[in-house]
Amino acid sequence: MKAVVTVMPRDDVLDPQGKAVAQALHSLGFADVGDVRVGKTIVLELATTSAAEARSEAEAMARKLLANPVIEQFEVEIKDA
Amino acid sequence: MKAVVTVMPRDDVLDPQGKAVAQALHSLGFADVGDVRVGKTIVLELATTSAAEARSEAEAMARKLLANPVIEQFEVEIKDA
Repeated sequence: MKAVVTVMPRDDVLDPQGKAVAQALHSLGFADVGDVRVGKTIVLELATTSAAEARSEAEAMARKLLANPVIEQFEVEIKDA
Repeated sequence: MKAVVTVMPRDDVLDPQGKAVAQALHSLGFADVGDVRVGKTIVLELATTSAAEARSEAEAMARKLLANPVIEQFEVEIKDA
């Protein structure tokens, strides 16, 4: 199973990296861009063949290591393969 | 429209950050984890209301700024809202 963990800054937390990207896009002429937020994607190959188990393992990993709950939120998506 | 650009290291490129995360997960007792790859997620708020336009703009931004095609590949997903 493949688990995709997406870690984003919480909505109520400032994201200076996102602001920098937004400014860079504006200077490149992309006037259409509003708010930008930058996060991490972690793709994990898991030995288990159960989607439920893969999800609970990936969530445990996100809570323990991949995300900092004070400033970040995460989502887990499970994919076959 | 909201565009989610996911930038990952190309499959044929080494990912030392992913390796480090895999090792850290193993030391935390997650024996089930195989390969790990770490990439970026960029969430862009776009003023346009056309999904096709949002996609082509986000792809242009990824090519120009967000991804380095030598070592990275990207995917664009368009969301309403």
